[in-house]
Amino acid sequence: MIAQSAPPASTLADATTASMPLAVRLFDELRRLTADGVGVTRDSYGAGEQLAHDLFEEAARSLDLETRKDPAGNLYMTLPGKERSLPAWFVGSHLDSVLHGGNYDGAAGVVAGLTALDALRRAGARPLRDITVMGIRAEECSTWFVGHHGGHLGSRAVLGLLWPGELDSAVHVRSGKTLAQCIDEAGFDSTCFRGNSGPYLKPERIAGYLELHIEQGPVLEHRGYPVGIVTGIRGALRGRSARTTGGYTHSGAVPHELRQDAVLASAELVNTLDTVWTRMRAANRDMVYTVGKFFTDPEHHSIVKVPGEVNFAFDIRSQDIGVLDEMRGVVTKLAEEIGARRNVHIDLGEMSLVRPAEMDAAIRAHMKTGCVELSIPYMDIPSGAGHDAADFHDAGIPAAMIFIRNANGSHNPDEAMEMDDFALGTRLLTWTLATADRIEPASAPAH
Amino acid sequence: MIAQSAPPASTLADATTASMPLAVRLFDELRRLTADGVGVTRDSYGAGEQLAHDLFEEAARSLDLETRKDPAGNLYMTLPGKERSLPAWFVGSHLDSVLHGGNYDGAAGVVAGLTALDALRRAGARPLRDITVMGIRAEECSTWFVGHHGGHLGSRAVLGLLWPGELDSAVHVRSGKTLAQCIDEAGFDSTCFRGNSGPYLKPERIAGYLELHIEQGPVLEHRGYPVGIVTGIRGALRGRSARTTGGYTHSGAVPHELRQDAVLASAELVNTLDTVWTRMRAANRDMVYTVGKFFTDPEHHSIVKVPGEVNFAFDIRSQDIGVLDEMRGVVTKLAEEIGARRNVHIDLGEMSLVRPAEMDAAIRAHMKTGCVELSIPYMDIPSGAGHDAADFHDAGIPAAMIFIRNANGSHNPDEAMEMDDFALGTRLLTWTLATADRIEPASAPAH
Repeated sequence: MIAQSAPPASTLADATTASMPLAVRLFDELRRLTADGVGVTRDSYGAGEQLAHDLFEEAARSLDLETRKDPAGNLYMTLPGKERSLPAWFVGSHLDSVLHGGNYDGAAGVVAGLTALDALRRAGARPLRDITVMGIRAEECSTWFVGHHGGHLGSRAVLGLLWPGELDSAVHVRSGKTLAQCIDEAGFDSTCFRGNSGPYLKPERIAGYLELHIEQGPVLEHRGYPVGIVTGIRGALRGRSARTTGGYTHSGAVPHELRQDAVLASAELVNTLDTVWTRMRAANRDMVYTVGKFFTDPEHHSIVKVPGEVNFAFDIRSQDIGVLDEMRGVVTKLAEEIGARRNVHIDLGEMSLVRPAEMDAAIRAHMKTGCVELSIPYMDIPSGAGHDAADFHDAGIPAAMIFIRNANGSHNPDEAMEMDDFALGTRLLTWTLATADRIEPASAPAH
Repeated sequence: MIAQSAPPASTLADATTASMPLAVRLFDELRRLTADGVGVTRDSYGAGEQLAHDLFEEAARSLDLETRKDPAGNLYMTLPGKERSLPAWFVGSHLDSVLHGGNYDGAAGVVAGLTALDALRRAGARPLRDITVMGIRAEECSTWFVGHHGGHLGSRAVLGLLWPGELDSAVHVRSGKTLAQCIDEAGFDSTCFRGNSGPYLKPERIAGYLELHIEQGPVLEHRGYPVGIVTGIRGALRGRSARTTGGYTHSGAVPHELRQDAVLASAELVNTLDTVWTRMRAANRDMVYTVGKFFTDPEHHSIVKVPGEVNFAFDIRSQDIGVLDEMRGVVTKLAEEIGARRNVHIDLGEMSLVRPAEMDAAIRAHMKTGCVELSIPYMDIPSGAGHDAADFHDAGIPAAMIFIRNANGSHNPDEAMEMDDFALGTRLLTWTLATADRIEPASAPAH
């Protein structure tokens, strides 16, 4: 593939700046349509998400983009390339939100995509390949669906990544309807995702997937960078229902050797894992470690009883599958050793593993070149939260992400992305799309 | 004081054995009268406690003992001594129980007292001093009274140890009536405990207080001794409402240095105190340490959030006030140091201190002589739970306790005291009362 000529970086930057009013208008409209009095609510396969999809579909049409939907309700808005038979570039993010969420989580990526397409046209860039902006369904489905499911239902459905039975085991938290029922009642067709007809989106038809997203942590804010190039999306080793069982007894009258203290055993486990974390950081190995829940039983606990039971949950994340595999061994061994020594039973329960998704090295290197050409200060940053980009990666599609500085975290109405930072990230996206065919062949998509 | 002659140990032992049917009858009657379908219930200043008092008052009359009650409703059953002007020996325990409690906790001490008096008569022993068996009210009042009170209300009332206002700030958990109202409605006179007229029981009129009680822990059972000589009643340093406050944030997206993790900070504190406990034990310093409550907030905690708050409660007990004082310093310093290092606030809340009550060395030494003479296997043992004996100690009265082996703990219907063990402990009590005036003058009561 011969790289096409693209407008100079300054032209692309100016065009993006000129297209920013489109972004501002989309954000404003979206907030107005889905405001809930606290933040915004765009429930997966519900009214709020649909309002967002309708808004973007209309915007795409007014930009003369080709629009279509898939059987899961995802929205595709395409700027045709010169050679339409070539695999397309995808730019996407999700249009749903958590309850009382913020306006930017997810939507910023779709707004950036449309804005970049508008800027490419404005700059007179005619891309070689189709560029499709994708408005994805149900990425925040962990808020809206309970039961057995693997999250990111919209992207995973069309990438062929749903588990067997997941259409029926994911159940809406309020209506009690299955995912299949929700898809069908929203006007789409869940039957397309049953059987073995292969994924709706063919990986060989996609050159790569780019996603711009607000950072969900405070790192860019803290370090003073407007933009992050995501190195990888951390995987997670999780124990959702760990339980230590000992024995309740008198706190004053029972000597150490006759106790089966569930709190002291669990605290030793939690604290020892913390020291393991310290060693991992000292060795520059990526890891975060959280014990989000730790509780004695309010029905039985008392200041004058040795505690006989503790329930806890842990979440260990890393970009390095080696760290997660190693930590599974460490946790298991510690639980056995501490349990035996302290005469309690530490049951870690079922541990779930989400594998890390490394972002495509060639696209990342290319985007860094763009940051230099565009004078955008950036840093490498891992994504601690999951994103649709991980599912594209898992389907074998090169994926990359741009993070935008955001104070106050996400999933709340206080998320604080500055439009100046968003403009820089969108400028990088425009440049990346205009120059995508310069990406080094060695790591370009194989198909 | 010249020691009086007493019957030989074998005579006292045989007499106690001969009096055991009285003990068996009293236990059986008491269980029958106060059974609740699960265990027994003898609510402080309620119907169950009153049934117990009535039973023992009647039994005392049939034994030709002098009976009387005090304005708090405590029952006194006295075998007159030869010299009635001398300070009397008291033998006592409480006649109330927890909800669904066991038959022996408390009552065993009163049954043992009456059985010992019967045995003394049977053995032809005429004591020098009055011996009064006391059926005490409201020792289990922590079950029955809420609000601001210091426990052991029956003994503390007549020993002049109630706090100012305690008659009104202790409130019945069900009726909502104050302690004063409960005392008055049970037919007694709370007004006697207001004002500064001095204690109802004059310490200078009491030679010493002896209490037989089931062990509330498993130590005698575990070590194979039927009887324990209590070395002291552990005091307690308690934090009922400690709280660590950090900040909730994303479990995957926030790096270590930007977290304020309340669980990891609290677990480090709990775990470090555990290592301090290990050092204390290694140095043969008496201490037990319990964190009976430790819980993240169910309204906010999540496996995918760094936990922003933990509430916990700790109970550190020791026979050695030096250990409790030292631990107050250790806990306070650790909370500050860990809080500062981990960027959270560890608020230990108000710490309460119950001082240890050392049992009288002279009486303990005398009882050990008795164990040897009577061939009773015994061991020294601390009391981890509180007892009325601590209040007599606090009032300046020499106090001592005999523990009886008991499987399955107390405060439940499964408490398991064998009558053979009870008979050995009662034999020791009979001997001690018969020979009490041989107790070494050096440590005999000063008054």
